[in-house]
Amino acid sequence: MLSVYLDKGQVGVRKIRPPRRAQGFALIRLLMGGICNTDLELQRGYYGFSGTPGHEFVGEVVEAETPGLLGRRVVGEINLACGNCEWCARGLGRHCPNRSVLGIVKHPGAFREFLTLPEENLHVLPESISTEEAVFVEPLAAACEILDQANIPERVEVAVIGDGKLGLLVAQVLHAHGMQVCLFGRYANKLRIAERAGIQTERMKKRIPTAEYDWIVEATGAAEGLRQAIQMVRPRGSVFMKSTVHGAVSIDTASVIVNEITLIGSACGTSEPALNLLLARKINVTAMISETLPLTEAKRAFVLAAKRGVLKVLLDPAR
Amino acid sequence: MLSVYLDKGQVGVRKIRPPRRAQGFALIRLLMGGICNTDLELQRGYYGFSGTPGHEFVGEVVEAETPGLLGRRVVGEINLACGNCEWCARGLGRHCPNRSVLGIVKHPGAFREFLTLPEENLHVLPESISTEEAVFVEPLAAACEILDQANIPERVEVAVIGDGKLGLLVAQVLHAHGMQVCLFGRYANKLRIAERAGIQTERMKKRIPTAEYDWIVEATGAAEGLRQAIQMVRPRGSVFMKSTVHGAVSIDTASVIVNEITLIGSACGTSEPALNLLLARKINVTAMISETLPLTEAKRAFVLAAKRGVLKVLLDPAR
Repeated sequence: MLSVYLDKGQVGVRKIRPPRRAQGFALIRLLMGGICNTDLELQRGYYGFSGTPGHEFVGEVVEAETPGLLGRRVVGEINLACGNCEWCARGLGRHCPNRSVLGIVKHPGAFREFLTLPEENLHVLPESISTEEAVFVEPLAAACEILDQANIPERVEVAVIGDGKLGLLVAQVLHAHGMQVCLFGRYANKLRIAERAGIQTERMKKRIPTAEYDWIVEATGAAEGLRQAIQMVRPRGSVFMKSTVHGAVSIDTASVIVNEITLIGSACGTSEPALNLLLARKINVTAMISETLPLTEAKRAFVLAAKRGVLKVLLDPAR
Repeated sequence: MLSVYLDKGQVGVRKIRPPRRAQGFALIRLLMGGICNTDLELQRGYYGFSGTPGHEFVGEVVEAETPGLLGRRVVGEINLACGNCEWCARGLGRHCPNRSVLGIVKHPGAFREFLTLPEENLHVLPESISTEEAVFVEPLAAACEILDQANIPERVEVAVIGDGKLGLLVAQVLHAHGMQVCLFGRYANKLRIAERAGIQTERMKKRIPTAEYDWIVEATGAAEGLRQAIQMVRPRGSVFMKSTVHGAVSIDTASVIVNEITLIGSACGTSEPALNLLLARKINVTAMISETLPLTEAKRAFVLAAKRGVLKVLLDPAR
């Protein structure tokens, strides 16, 4: 089968043997993969990664222990948790210290014709959610994670900084939950996606507000974003940190302390709330697709995904 | 009257006119002042400060509108709030954007024979609290602020990093509230103060724990402390930031995000909980006094307060 491979910053496609299904696992044929900024960070050396990347996917189950799974379209939780530790007992397998992570830590990713995941990680997709929509479940779950971490009051003003893929998803999720979202970004075409969903937007070119928001989500993907968020937040306000930037980021801790700001690191989520939002048709994800390329053109897809102004690039093994 | 003066890093004592009491203010004779790390930061150029420092004090009211205040021993809230804004209405005058701050922002400090503060800022001291104890009310209030910001579960394990003045106060406050505190520090003589209060201690020389605590208070006063705290905290845990370090601090935001750590800036508190702890004799503050010098020897007192291993240095105008 074909498999994308990342090594020392180079993206290639290799022919390898299909994986063997271990006990409790399903063998899944890839229907669609999505390139995430984390994949680009892995390419830049984050986690010292080499191997098959890919954690945003939709697939079809071809082998499984549970007969009901066979032939079904699925998405999957990307954390393979041990199931035995305190974190797993708390339902927080995504923080299990013994976990592997699809396409990120010790488990080959989804950018290949066949992949494996534990059956318990899978969610069968309803017919009404298309494959192009479902490939956004994983990043949409990461956007929903914010709501799992804090009780943001309804109808409150929230600033989302960054009009990339994650920023657009976060803005839509919070808007769908009744918050008054303002999305700050740099690209008119990206901001327009949010505007069409009824979200207020602002260009960051000139004005960065000072101490104006109690709630801020930083999703710029750049170190500068956190410093801007610290400037924009009001005393005793909260900043969700969504940008995994490789390396150290320097911040003015004195103003965080004097203004008693709370910074909340926010990572992966779980799929249920994301699937519910898609089912209720509350989020427009397909507007964020910039291009769909065959799996064999993964190298070009990675180059494209890293370009300014480009949003989601998908990999389709059937093309 | 004599007044300490800070200018371009130099500490001196000058003879100036006593301040005039404005409407709503009390004129207060200084009984005791305490040198805080913030005073040392002001000396180093923090806030571009020049003027009379000092915000930890006990005084005696010599002029006031409220007759009941005359002749009474008092401590005072250091933030002079406008009383008209949203923050003041929420009881958070310490975040009022129009505020001045005793000895820090636009209001001359307490290190002089006579000072002024709004009468509403004052707390009359009960007889049973000595002047040497009461001079710790302001830093003790800052230690208590943590409990105002988050609901830390009772009996939970908390690591306090830093065996300086603030770390020792924080450790005692949390211990008094039933938490299982471990104080991490560098100096045997400082750690002994906590040990005598029944607090577990650990020397940081060799071992810095990894992902061991859900709750951490960082009070080292150094940039390195925050990085250590981020190493020591468990996924989804919280770090209170208490060290106002001048300048930018670089942190590994990726691990804050992946582990979904919450960083909570924590500054000043209000005096009531601090006074209640002293009244209940739950905190031993006098063990933290390294030396008491006359106001005229402020220069030497600042040098001493900045020395390694030294804890609280007091200024006594009656000496």
